[in-house]
Amino acid sequence: MNIVILGSGNVATHLGRAFKLAGQNISQVWSRDITHASTLADTLASEPIDNMFDLDRSADLFMIAVNDEAIRELALELKLSDQLLVHTSGSTGLSALEATSTKIGVFYPLQTFSKIKSVDFRQIPIIIEANTPELLTTIRAIADRLSEKVIELNSEQRKTLHVAAVFACNFTNHLFGLAKELLDEKGLDYGLLKPLIEETLSKIETNEPAFIQTGPAIREDQVTIQAHLELLKNNPALSDLYTKLSQSIVNLHKRSQGLV
Amino acid sequence: MNIVILGSGNVATHLGRAFKLAGQNISQVWSRDITHASTLADTLASEPIDNMFDLDRSADLFMIAVNDEAIRELALELKLSDQLLVHTSGSTGLSALEATSTKIGVFYPLQTFSKIKSVDFRQIPIIIEANTPELLTTIRAIADRLSEKVIELNSEQRKTLHVAAVFACNFTNHLFGLAKELLDEKGLDYGLLKPLIEETLSKIETNEPAFIQTGPAIREDQVTIQAHLELLKNNPALSDLYTKLSQSIVNLHKRSQGLV
Repeated sequence: MNIVILGSGNVATHLGRAFKLAGQNISQVWSRDITHASTLADTLASEPIDNMFDLDRSADLFMIAVNDEAIRELALELKLSDQLLVHTSGSTGLSALEATSTKIGVFYPLQTFSKIKSVDFRQIPIIIEANTPELLTTIRAIADRLSEKVIELNSEQRKTLHVAAVFACNFTNHLFGLAKELLDEKGLDYGLLKPLIEETLSKIETNEPAFIQTGPAIREDQVTIQAHLELLKNNPALSDLYTKLSQSIVNLHKRSQGLV
Repeated sequence: MNIVILGSGNVATHLGRAFKLAGQNISQVWSRDITHASTLADTLASEPIDNMFDLDRSADLFMIAVNDEAIRELALELKLSDQLLVHTSGSTGLSALEATSTKIGVFYPLQTFSKIKSVDFRQIPIIIEANTPELLTTIRAIADRLSEKVIELNSEQRKTLHVAAVFACNFTNHLFGLAKELLDEKGLDYGLLKPLIEETLSKIETNEPAFIQTGPAIREDQVTIQAHLELLKNNPALSDLYTKLSQSIVNLHKRSQGLV
């Protein structure tokens, strides 16, 4: 199978590697910046291109892996007709590809990628969607070569999964970043939090998060909450976030207990 | 050494077990509720008490492990004079014990405890403080029996560590809870997020969180952000939290780049 990858960022890079490892041929890598295209293409024994005249329209699969806001426009630029075209976005509807080809789908790997770190693709859920049952079968077969967890969801379900992932992954990472900044400012070692972070993660492996919530907010311990806000008073954005998250903990608790 | 534990919650339970494992004698467990005192005392071969008349004033160490807001009042009720008294709170100053005894200190294990799950106490940082250098040496010797990581911090430093722990642990767990609720509402499997959560955690083992931030906020990808807010529109508190956290990601990025 010949695959053309459109994009050269983290998702394009990791998908390219995974396909290569699975024995597929990446015939071309496209990017608006030929340097970026070349960097990735070199690692995949592929041809870098930066314009659509050079596009190999005979490829079996065209995979768009660019920022969400660029997907629709890029799809139109491709000027395909009945070639298989997929995007790799969590929050973009299948419909973004409708004007482009008669065979369209979604191939969304649910993972956070960074170029410096490799991942075991076999364990990454790949969320698929297509505009016909036959095409879904085709896309599933392609996804099965990369991952043990291939799941069909419609666009609405996939968007929900993506926003949940933002809460569980992006926002979580940010909280670690805020914690580190707080400690750095006082010359304290961020490494002190490591056992705590590991235990927090270990607990949710086997427990529902809302049921194992700890801390001052769930105890409605106003003395501690006020002491923390006093400590954060020089950073209004951070103390506001503290208050909002504490309130959200109380509210989720009530919802999970069926109290509201 | 004879230890009296005041309290019967998660911290009291885990500290009691850890001292017992280290060969110390827990002579008494106090709680306002004798049933709670008995439940813990039974596991520690200790005497349960629910009033201060029965308190063994000859004990070597009195350890207060109750909610922050109850510490000061409970300390006064003990009517000690020169016995060694410590509390186990992250956000309560040493001064909360001043009116009670001439020998006061802090013994704060930096971990999230739940009764159902045991932890390896040797890896838990214990943050200590005392009102004299001699006493600090004594408390350090006690802490060394439980943990490999005993660290002296003053009350201000300890409070900062505690608020950082709330961000990195309590708030993080809550975000997992919110993610699960979002998925539950649409009948989607929370387990799908597991590889993503594991990778997020794995990344921060070796990288500074602010430098590996991913997601729509750090890309300032307004199309995705707006799609997510549209999805959350029926839950104003959650969409407000989404907006605040996204803004906070951008702000932390600017600060970490020295742009503000």
